[in-house]
Amino acid sequence: MHPLNPALAATFAPPVMEARRWLRGVTFAPDRPLINVSQAAPVDPPPEGLRRAIAEAALNRPEAHLYGPVLGNDDLRDAVAARFSAAYGGTVLPGHVAITQGCNQAFCAAIATLAGAGDDVILPVPWYFNHKMWLDMAGIACRPLACGDDMLPDPDRAEALIGPRTRAIVLVTPNNPSGAEYPAALVARFHDLARRRGLVLVLDETYRDFDSRTGAPHDLLTRDDWQDSVIQLYSFSKAYRLTGHRVGALIAGQDRLAQVEKFLDTVAISPGQLGQVGAVWGMAHLDDWLAGERHEVLARRDACRAAFAGLEGWRVKSAGAYFAWVEHPFDMPSDALAQRMVAEAGVLALPGTMFTPQGDAVGLRHLRIAFANVDAAGIGRLAERLAGLA
Amino acid sequence: MHPLNPALAATFAPPVMEARRWLRGVTFAPDRPLINVSQAAPVDPPPEGLRRAIAEAALNRPEAHLYGPVLGNDDLRDAVAARFSAAYGGTVLPGHVAITQGCNQAFCAAIATLAGAGDDVILPVPWYFNHKMWLDMAGIACRPLACGDDMLPDPDRAEALIGPRTRAIVLVTPNNPSGAEYPAALVARFHDLARRRGLVLVLDETYRDFDSRTGAPHDLLTRDDWQDSVIQLYSFSKAYRLTGHRVGALIAGQDRLAQVEKFLDTVAISPGQLGQVGAVWGMAHLDDWLAGERHEVLARRDACRAAFAGLEGWRVKSAGAYFAWVEHPFDMPSDALAQRMVAEAGVLALPGTMFTPQGDAVGLRHLRIAFANVDAAGIGRLAERLAGLA
Repeated sequence: MHPLNPALAATFAPPVMEARRWLRGVTFAPDRPLINVSQAAPVDPPPEGLRRAIAEAALNRPEAHLYGPVLGNDDLRDAVAARFSAAYGGTVLPGHVAITQGCNQAFCAAIATLAGAGDDVILPVPWYFNHKMWLDMAGIACRPLACGDDMLPDPDRAEALIGPRTRAIVLVTPNNPSGAEYPAALVARFHDLARRRGLVLVLDETYRDFDSRTGAPHDLLTRDDWQDSVIQLYSFSKAYRLTGHRVGALIAGQDRLAQVEKFLDTVAISPGQLGQVGAVWGMAHLDDWLAGERHEVLARRDACRAAFAGLEGWRVKSAGAYFAWVEHPFDMPSDALAQRMVAEAGVLALPGTMFTPQGDAVGLRHLRIAFANVDAAGIGRLAERLAGLA
Repeated sequence: MHPLNPALAATFAPPVMEARRWLRGVTFAPDRPLINVSQAAPVDPPPEGLRRAIAEAALNRPEAHLYGPVLGNDDLRDAVAARFSAAYGGTVLPGHVAITQGCNQAFCAAIATLAGAGDDVILPVPWYFNHKMWLDMAGIACRPLACGDDMLPDPDRAEALIGPRTRAIVLVTPNNPSGAEYPAALVARFHDLARRRGLVLVLDETYRDFDSRTGAPHDLLTRDDWQDSVIQLYSFSKAYRLTGHRVGALIAGQDRLAQVEKFLDTVAISPGQLGQVGAVWGMAHLDDWLAGERHEVLARRDACRAAFAGLEGWRVKSAGAYFAWVEHPFDMPSDALAQRMVAEAGVLALPGTMFTPQGDAVGLRHLRIAFANVDAAGIGRLAERLAGLA
């Protein structure tokens, strides 16, 4: 095929779509259906009230079908600013908020403001694969930062990776794929490092609503100069089950938002209207419901930890958000094991190789278990099936 | 601000948002409201049946809230393939179709497969500004191809622009901003050129539903090798008034679609569900309605031509789709004139400078008039007001 952008050609195919292809031609007995722990997404629709709010807007609000402002509707930007100001104890103004077509797009926009071809960005490993793919296709080199056995990245090791064209450090907390919740003091050390070395800290908090800790997960937004050195990303997809509507947010200083606006105008024109309606409604009405959702996810996390504790040779390295990062006991690479698990155990999980550089030993030895969509009984069955793998 | 991607910093701010800022602080008398001919978008919501289809999906179809396939839902890809096969007399399979979050995103995806930083792409001038912005921010040089006085680009002049790193030629037909409908024979000559020189022809047909000609606007999709040398783009926004839902399409060969899938997975994950529901419904039910819409837009085009014919010193160079490209008689740059028109005539139109390289003589002398949202009476009033400009 010619012409072909070599940077795009060099990156890998979408891992979730690849994993779905492993299911082709495989049949599962009715009494032993597939246990799907591959996907980081709700499987049920949002609560009825939110669905009604979207339906009513579709029927009765003409502007719900028309272009809106590039950076998102005022009501949603206001709500996000108020929510983040309260939750983080800082001052986030509506003018610091951009609404995006999902949090992946928020990441792309953030990086587009920071780096271009030939620059580089530090990503802890294991990484979220779409982050790596975006860097690849933009011609931005990734400097992989190995996490410790506790799945936390080390700021000193990060500093040693900084080169003359390093532009940013990206942290995902709670982490995808490891589930690790980064302590506030650790996030602060990364921020100090970024500020000292003239970098920006990009904080992806897609899973913040399921953090097991109470209170603010970091204090960066209380600092006077956060606008110069922090970009924070958020997703409405997980909290309100809006994955099909593509609504995310980016929080940054106003100068940087003017650059974000250029990117979003070009890639999106404006975010989808009905998803924004849903997000506004969710923020106004679903706090209690979301608290219940969080409670259930945390209970599943505990069930997952307990189930794997009883599995010989398996070890949970970290767990949080929707995920557990588990070491497997087999003398085979995780990608081969994951495909074997489909055939022999009726379990679909993503192998660590999808979150690490090619050949990385950590990737070969681990799997990501997206436990959030499986209830406690299902997690028990998952463990039974894994126990049966010889 | 540091760090800052110089390629993004170097491109211009979103023109439509800039033009909106010209309205700030300006008041319009109730008997002389603003005539807004700046925007290339419907101002009314879609027909009630389509709105009901979206509302019902929101209420009753759980999957309408969840992630779908990266390349779009099967029903919409099937419908697009069938529609394009019939309309163009070729064979477009569902596997040749990607659904995107709007046609801007389809363009970004197309270019991402073709070119990277340091490559270049040929754009006829005047260009669609978001195309230029995307090339700028990706570090791809634009080779501007001046159109003739008939607003048509010349393949021989294009060939003279091809360099060792030229990857593609982009044509928008019917054109934004000029409205010119490119003859099928001209499109074919560009395709022959692209194929002979190892380039890809990107055809943006966002406004195809409002083409004044009947029958296929080109024969490229009937050619055996179109998959190697053509990428076709489409938007559902204009036909079915879905701008607020962000639904577009990209048609290409299957190998190239595998690359498009990487880009879309990273930037979008999947297109919005409810917009896809609307697009499917529209294609199934709105052919007659759309024929009426087209008829009305063509009538407005004729009214626009007639109105400007009676205006001394003004000249319509081309008109079609939603737009007329008009030469103005004033001894001032079009961007200064456009701002003066807001204050003195109560008319908002985009200046030619927003569609051309900085300092370009053609840009300075022309304006884009998006007549499609103004009825014949309104076009008459527009002409009266312009006649009153001294």
